[in-house]
Amino acid sequence: MTDYDTIRPVRWERDRLMLLDQRALPGRTRWIQCESSAAAAQAIRDMVVRGAPAIGIAAAYGAVLAAREAMAAAPTSWLPRLEQALEHLGAARPTAVNLRWALRRQRRRLDAATPDPAAVLLREAQAIVDEDLAANRRMGVLGAALMTEPGGVLTHCNTGSLATAGYGTALGVIRSAWMEGRITRVYAGETRPWLQGARLTAWELLQDGIPVTLLADSAAPALMRSGAVRWVVVGADRVTANGDVANKIGTYALAVAARQHGAGFMVVAPRSSVDMTLPHGDAIDIECREAGELLALNGHRVAPAGADAWNPVFDITPAALVDALVTEAGVVHRPDREGMATRFAGTGAGDAVPAGQ
Amino acid sequence: MTDYDTIRPVRWERDRLMLLDQRALPGRTRWIQCESSAAAAQAIRDMVVRGAPAIGIAAAYGAVLAAREAMAAAPTSWLPRLEQALEHLGAARPTAVNLRWALRRQRRRLDAATPDPAAVLLREAQAIVDEDLAANRRMGVLGAALMTEPGGVLTHCNTGSLATAGYGTALGVIRSAWMEGRITRVYAGETRPWLQGARLTAWELLQDGIPVTLLADSAAPALMRSGAVRWVVVGADRVTANGDVANKIGTYALAVAARQHGAGFMVVAPRSSVDMTLPHGDAIDIECREAGELLALNGHRVAPAGADAWNPVFDITPAALVDALVTEAGVVHRPDREGMATRFAGTGAGDAVPAGQ
Repeated sequence: MTDYDTIRPVRWERDRLMLLDQRALPGRTRWIQCESSAAAAQAIRDMVVRGAPAIGIAAAYGAVLAAREAMAAAPTSWLPRLEQALEHLGAARPTAVNLRWALRRQRRRLDAATPDPAAVLLREAQAIVDEDLAANRRMGVLGAALMTEPGGVLTHCNTGSLATAGYGTALGVIRSAWMEGRITRVYAGETRPWLQGARLTAWELLQDGIPVTLLADSAAPALMRSGAVRWVVVGADRVTANGDVANKIGTYALAVAARQHGAGFMVVAPRSSVDMTLPHGDAIDIECREAGELLALNGHRVAPAGADAWNPVFDITPAALVDALVTEAGVVHRPDREGMATRFAGTGAGDAVPAGQ
Repeated sequence: MTDYDTIRPVRWERDRLMLLDQRALPGRTRWIQCESSAAAAQAIRDMVVRGAPAIGIAAAYGAVLAAREAMAAAPTSWLPRLEQALEHLGAARPTAVNLRWALRRQRRRLDAATPDPAAVLLREAQAIVDEDLAANRRMGVLGAALMTEPGGVLTHCNTGSLATAGYGTALGVIRSAWMEGRITRVYAGETRPWLQGARLTAWELLQDGIPVTLLADSAAPALMRSGAVRWVVVGADRVTANGDVANKIGTYALAVAARQHGAGFMVVAPRSSVDMTLPHGDAIDIECREAGELLALNGHRVAPAGADAWNPVFDITPAALVDALVTEAGVVHRPDREGMATRFAGTGAGDAVPAGQ
């Protein structure tokens, strides 16, 4: 039985970091080879890799390259050099919490007496990959089990193999449920303005033999009205202590429409995205990006000069619209403050590990 | 006092039909001159002009050109020739009901004894323009009066001067309300997949000195959640006897979100868009256009080969989500079968005149 899981966007091969260039997808499948930590930092900065877990993994491998360089340059006093390189890697994407989390984790494996730091960091990077994959597989099982009747699913943005070590979060649930025959059709919103749905989600599902139907984001409520959608399945950048969800702009629109039409609304995110220190979603600052991303397409100006644009990256979906929050630590049904506290008390979520997966 | 109304996309100048080329907007302001009825038909077919009322007006002027040609070719037996040219014009856009309505109206002004058919048809074309403008002005007054407290408005697609003889339907209400100080800010959804909001609505509002903020369609509910929107104001392609509204895809999404957030939802459409012969919106066949419109941008392929797309042109908004239907014949508040029948009984709406404005 196929498990619809072939894509690994971040690889360590022949002592090099290999990154699937997500900027070239879906037109071209191109791999960027990083043989130095500076090259890895540049690739992260240039968004060759995207998706918080995938960025963290790329940085963890970048640290291996940095260790090798530091050892070659200063075999007996490599640590300060390596620390400098880790800082450089950590600055590659200012708001990517997973990046700095992965580098902190790498840093903790080292002291000046470590005999072969590159080997130590390589093992740790592989551990991060294995843990991420295992968490995604576990979320896939838990989320798919909620789909008790076959039906259509709708997803948003890209939460798949491309955004993680592999398999994905929301898209992992879709992979699992598809494999188990619980899904009749996968719909994906194109996800303006960056079109991750059209470019990346469609590509990776088709790579793995899962058919997909794209739609304009604004068509989703009409699709739901037709009865074609049983579950909306999305990821999360951050989940707060009351179960509110910050995720890609457009998520809230789907949650409102799902509730209106009796479709289930499932949020799939690693435990590390749960930040129990934040009381509710409105405590999250929503980043607004430059208007130009909306005013042009493929570098071609669409809107007239003088037009302004409101271009938030995320929106907040109140917990009351969430039917199920799926993490590798378990499912919270209809999350609220109490349900969240019961599930995540003492698991360390939101403490040592990053929000923002 | 400025009335924020300078754009006339279809003009009759020096015995020629002049069409503002909407395909070139907002980058270039280019006029296409049509000196023959064949050229007018071609321009309509090529979508130089869009928006049902504007298409009807272009066809009405095209009929003038046809009459001139028929008279020149066969001064004593011009009518059969003219009828053939009208048929050619009528076939330029198969689903544009206003086009055939305008041509039927022109045909009715003629018989074989008409001494100067071109002059007769020119007067009739100008009457169609004057009536459309007057209806739009009247809707502007009626719709603006509903905005009793200043606030933000959100619109969708293009329902403005560019789609009509001038002033517009929903955008006419926005013009009127802006002039009266009832609007603090105009938001426009970009309107995927054709981007009429980003390309056309933003252009015409800025031309007339009304500032506009664009957003991704999927961001509208998050904007409403922030309290920035007091009214959603949209047009309609067709309104049925129970008050259901067929309009550009994405309209229903806005209606659902508006109700969720207590924003008003106003539909502005000429009386001729009300089709009292259709019992409800689900009796309307929703045209789905080719997937390619979603899978590519500016001719550049975005989605991977093998991806399918669902690309409906319109969606249906149930009457229950409509707070006010504004026509030049008056306002129906919270439309339902009874309210619609009371307002539109005996007005001839939906009979001799077209749906599909």
